[in-house]
Amino acid sequence: MNGARSLIRTLVAAGVDTCFMNPGTSEMHFVAALDDVPDMRGVLALFEGVATGAADGYARMRGTPAAVLLHLGPGLGNGLANLHNARKARVPVVVIVGDHALHHLQYDAPLTSDIETVARNVSPGWVHRSTSTVDLGRDAAAAVAASMGPPPQVATLILPADVSWTDGGVDGELTVPKARAAVDPDVIERLARVIRSGEPTALFLGGVALGERGLRAAGRLADAAGVKLMAETFPTRIERGAELHEPTRLSYLGDFAVMQLQPFQHLVLADATSPVSFFAYPGKESDLVPSTCEVHELAAPSAGLDVVAALEQLADAIGAPPAVDAPAGAVPERPTGALTAQTMAAAVAATLPEGAIVSDEAQTSGLFLAGATADAPRHSWLCLTGGSIGQGMPVAIGAAVACSDRRVLNLQADGSALYTLQSLWTQSREGLDVTTVICNNRSYSVLNMELQRVGADAVGPKALDMLDLHRPDIDFVSLAQGLGVPAVRVDTAEDLTRELERSYAESGPRLIEAMIPPVM
Amino acid sequence: MNGARSLIRTLVAAGVDTCFMNPGTSEMHFVAALDDVPDMRGVLALFEGVATGAADGYARMRGTPAAVLLHLGPGLGNGLANLHNARKARVPVVVIVGDHALHHLQYDAPLTSDIETVARNVSPGWVHRSTSTVDLGRDAAAAVAASMGPPPQVATLILPADVSWTDGGVDGELTVPKARAAVDPDVIERLARVIRSGEPTALFLGGVALGERGLRAAGRLADAAGVKLMAETFPTRIERGAELHEPTRLSYLGDFAVMQLQPFQHLVLADATSPVSFFAYPGKESDLVPSTCEVHELAAPSAGLDVVAALEQLADAIGAPPAVDAPAGAVPERPTGALTAQTMAAAVAATLPEGAIVSDEAQTSGLFLAGATADAPRHSWLCLTGGSIGQGMPVAIGAAVACSDRRVLNLQADGSALYTLQSLWTQSREGLDVTTVICNNRSYSVLNMELQRVGADAVGPKALDMLDLHRPDIDFVSLAQGLGVPAVRVDTAEDLTRELERSYAESGPRLIEAMIPPVM
Repeated sequence: MNGARSLIRTLVAAGVDTCFMNPGTSEMHFVAALDDVPDMRGVLALFEGVATGAADGYARMRGTPAAVLLHLGPGLGNGLANLHNARKARVPVVVIVGDHALHHLQYDAPLTSDIETVARNVSPGWVHRSTSTVDLGRDAAAAVAASMGPPPQVATLILPADVSWTDGGVDGELTVPKARAAVDPDVIERLARVIRSGEPTALFLGGVALGERGLRAAGRLADAAGVKLMAETFPTRIERGAELHEPTRLSYLGDFAVMQLQPFQHLVLADATSPVSFFAYPGKESDLVPSTCEVHELAAPSAGLDVVAALEQLADAIGAPPAVDAPAGAVPERPTGALTAQTMAAAVAATLPEGAIVSDEAQTSGLFLAGATADAPRHSWLCLTGGSIGQGMPVAIGAAVACSDRRVLNLQADGSALYTLQSLWTQSREGLDVTTVICNNRSYSVLNMELQRVGADAVGPKALDMLDLHRPDIDFVSLAQGLGVPAVRVDTAEDLTRELERSYAESGPRLIEAMIPPVM
Repeated sequence: MNGARSLIRTLVAAGVDTCFMNPGTSEMHFVAALDDVPDMRGVLALFEGVATGAADGYARMRGTPAAVLLHLGPGLGNGLANLHNARKARVPVVVIVGDHALHHLQYDAPLTSDIETVARNVSPGWVHRSTSTVDLGRDAAAAVAASMGPPPQVATLILPADVSWTDGGVDGELTVPKARAAVDPDVIERLARVIRSGEPTALFLGGVALGERGLRAAGRLADAAGVKLMAETFPTRIERGAELHEPTRLSYLGDFAVMQLQPFQHLVLADATSPVSFFAYPGKESDLVPSTCEVHELAAPSAGLDVVAALEQLADAIGAPPAVDAPAGAVPERPTGALTAQTMAAAVAATLPEGAIVSDEAQTSGLFLAGATADAPRHSWLCLTGGSIGQGMPVAIGAAVACSDRRVLNLQADGSALYTLQSLWTQSREGLDVTTVICNNRSYSVLNMELQRVGADAVGPKALDMLDLHRPDIDFVSLAQGLGVPAVRVDTAEDLTRELERSYAESGPRLIEAMIPPVM
């Protein structure tokens, strides 16, 4: 058994049975070994950023890692932006970066580069180079364990070609996954006192606190003690709709965020960090929490604590009754008329199927989505966690692979779509049930806003040209068809609503190019 | 004057008047300042790898750097693969990576990452973070000087947003570019003795030795002393055609390369490193030079020496007569019949316009190109220097921007095209005279070959599926049209020949999808 085979066997035994990949010569033994291990599924991507983003989406929905196979330093480079998003999402991903054979590195062949330093950027906690075939299985098991945390992380295993091709592989021994540690009871008692004091308190939820159990516990605190439920601006995954309590998401715009936080004397962090501005702006504070508000930590993301149990203990400590369903809202109406950011949101809300997974990278066009869909049937909502655009389409792939019985809806801004458009080909190849709505406003609309916010005055035509996506207009229907995904363009709310329903009724991917004027 | 303006003014004063960019919020002051400095041209790319590859192509043709503007660590990540190629090409590039304001870094906002470690991968010689506005102009001048070498390199300047937006910018003082140092006369005399010995000698040319002057000097050594002229497998830029001596390029296939080098007792390196295998293969040597051959260094690439003058001095030292034109070859005939790698090469050779620039990323479909085009009219040929695919289309952009009076022909493999396909949009937007021929064999054909070469036996269907680009077939005509470039598909040699000529007769970009069966 060569190293590659022992690696794949170990991954599968550890529950990692999907590998998103864009391999090259140094990974050919890994690829050849796929047929030796029937339970490993290889999913080909045309670009590495598709593979890494797919692994992120998979982990968000499955809770366990997928593997990603990349080709040397440049392949890792191409995958880096979405690994950055995965790192900020705090999800488990096992990255395998093929490298030259160990004895070949000294020759500085064209593809030689310093892989470790690049990997540290997204895998600060675990980067390891395998140097002998006999240890490769053990290294793979360690990579899986490291990725699972807690807290989960991106773990990078560098795989020299000769370690892969040499005989003598040994299956790695699996370690029992570590459990999340309990939050200190003193912390819970202290926070219970804060809540019982009656002083205005908000619970700021992030990470795993935004799953169903976490939200139900948080809902008890809201119902029993009037605690305001808030959530990170861009959560990794939030369960939403129907009977679940809906936390208010903190605004991306710092001025609004400060206003949202202003009423509170206490802010309790649950698997979230204290709110800060996404970017810095001249004359504005980076820290969004008013000085009159005290910040308390129930569980820091980096601590890997059992925040869900802690929320339940906190609800118990204040004597909150068992969870009850939030009141059902009105059934959203089907929109009519011109297609706008508002009617797009209404069309999504009116048609969203039960159990849908929404991959949201709609950017400015998505301004009205959260409000419109709060009362839709139960669904999962996935956000752009690290701010590196080009994540929505790959995440949709991973979510669809992880949950083949659920429809994935990718709400995707036009400019952002063009970083990882190759995703559509993998969606077609794998027959994934992904509906992509391109929100096409023909500009980097968010940058038009940011240009004003950063105080860049006296903006001239050359500057505006760098934010503009006309000249030429991009035809997403042609692009989708070129990559094997059927597509249609819509200009009205009725047409979007009809095409959404049509896509949900069919299997396989479909793209809808929605012509939506800029909201700002 | 804010920092951004002083930065752009300094760049323009230093001759860096083109900036390929994909900016975000932290770069908005740089973008806004474009209108303040009329001589700076901003070229927008939809993806960072397009911008970095374009800067590489620009530098290859202009000899001086373009700037690239990227958005924080993830933007650098997306641009990394083509910066790797630029590093291996040893061309000057000034990379400006925007970052958060200095006071904002402590908050670990979503887009925060460790930019320096990633930048070191492609800029090992010069990475600098500007920390005050008053120094920014000076830092920019230093970046330009560092990029120029000799030897040239990728220089990375990290630009915090507040350094950019704060007032107090000062124009940077330019340093006089360093000249390449002369090669030690003793080295030249020693090598002259080697050549005069009459023992079989090959001159292995790389880097700047493959320009017109270098080739003419090398031709004198070939004509006068029977020195065999050879060249790197994937040169940065080689001047070719008509009366120029054509060195034999070393084969990508190690076994063939060893056979090519076997006849020689001496191998003289001229701005090239000693030949090594691209990848390692089980049981094969990485060093391709036979043990019976002595390797001599006229000028190492890392030394930044004046290798062209040294070649002329060497020719003088052996008493070689002045350069004469190489004998003209036969005019290539126009091919007919089925479209194959052979007839594709013949069609290119029969129609190549005088002064064309060829960006060659045809991979296996390009097997016959070098032979077919050796006698074409004078042209420049640019190769994939670092092995990181997805470089040909962006390099075509940079070459066309640098040389607006020359036609650029990008011969592009299908699989490789899909890493940076967004290039077509920039070609359309800028009205660049780029003809793209997609050599579509619907597979990662080179990997089918490599799978055998690495000795991966018993290859099954799952492995082969990872190398296959059917399912679905990719329609490059649709993709090109979606990005604003007119396109046509051809199936015969006659149609390809006609469409090539048609594209050369028109201005602006055009794409030809050539259906070429795999050569292996």
